[in-house]
Amino acid sequence: MGTVVWHVTMSLDGFIAAPDDAMDWVFESWGGPSETANEVIATTGAILMGRRTYEVEDRDRAGIYGGAWTGPIFVLTHEPPDDEPDWLTGTFVDEPIEAAVARAREAARGKNVGILGASVARQCLEQSLVDEIVVHLAPVLLGDGIRLFELPGGRRIRLERTHVSRTAGLTDLRFRVGDDSKEAA
Amino acid sequence: MGTVVWHVTMSLDGFIAAPDDAMDWVFESWGGPSETANEVIATTGAILMGRRTYEVEDRDRAGIYGGAWTGPIFVLTHEPPDDEPDWLTGTFVDEPIEAAVARAREAARGKNVGILGASVARQCLEQSLVDEIVVHLAPVLLGDGIRLFELPGGRRIRLERTHVSRTAGLTDLRFRVGDDSKEAA
Repeated sequence: MGTVVWHVTMSLDGFIAAPDDAMDWVFESWGGPSETANEVIATTGAILMGRRTYEVEDRDRAGIYGGAWTGPIFVLTHEPPDDEPDWLTGTFVDEPIEAAVARAREAARGKNVGILGASVARQCLEQSLVDEIVVHLAPVLLGDGIRLFELPGGRRIRLERTHVSRTAGLTDLRFRVGDDSKEAA
Repeated sequence: MGTVVWHVTMSLDGFIAAPDDAMDWVFESWGGPSETANEVIATTGAILMGRRTYEVEDRDRAGIYGGAWTGPIFVLTHEPPDDEPDWLTGTFVDEPIEAAVARAREAARGKNVGILGASVARQCLEQSLVDEIVVHLAPVLLGDGIRLFELPGGRRIRLERTHVSRTAGLTDLRFRVGDDSKEAA
């Protein structure tokens, strides 16, 4: 069965979007192909994201991964937009995170479920639903924006580093989410 | 002449201390020696830190780097403690960050100035006084604590990755602070 993979590009100081959801720093940082990203894209069978990530994707309407991936997309939101955009091969869902992940798993048909954005990822982490975190670390400090993970009071989630590689601009890192974190949940 | 090196262990989600300045996750994460850390320690001629980092160091009184380094230490604070602790081979200074860095540079006698802690580092970054950032990335999410870098409204500081290596537990990363950031300052 596929796994649940949180896939994200992050600044060194832990932001996944700059203020006003700006993402230009991501494109500036890449500098060339990433084998890790290509692997993640090739093994993804369905994607689950939140409303805010959807809004960012909806700005350029290029499709997920700039159009490099197509498949079932689920947008978790209490407030679906009135008009479903034509670039989105997906569905707006309003249900508990466990149900949304189960739905995406089924749609992935044995491939992985890709999680995009901080909010859905945080909900998944809180419920121990994430199996792997794939981070493209960008060589930039942003100072403000959307943070990778925050939970007031803190929550230790132990990871196991399984892969490190370099692209022209990025440092690609893969981590398995520790079983102890899952037991503690 | 030596450079100004910000040396830090960071959780994947960008924290350099857990809530209540807890640092146990750092020791849990190391898992073995780090050639990068040894290099940094060997090339450091003086250390500059803030009052909060000093308080953390003062809890175990083992000395900087657990006693693996000795040399001149400057603690930047408006409120020096009444009694100078005997473990501290250093001086409390209350002066602008530029003056404190210049003082540490002179004391380093051609070796590097090591910056410890988030507050002094942020002040140095704002004044373009940091030449290099050395990060030991720990395989853990913390969710809350002291952040590597934050500046409301954001500030882009471009970095150049110069080194990546793995220790048993950590991913060691070195970045040169971009000259364009310095010009923009």
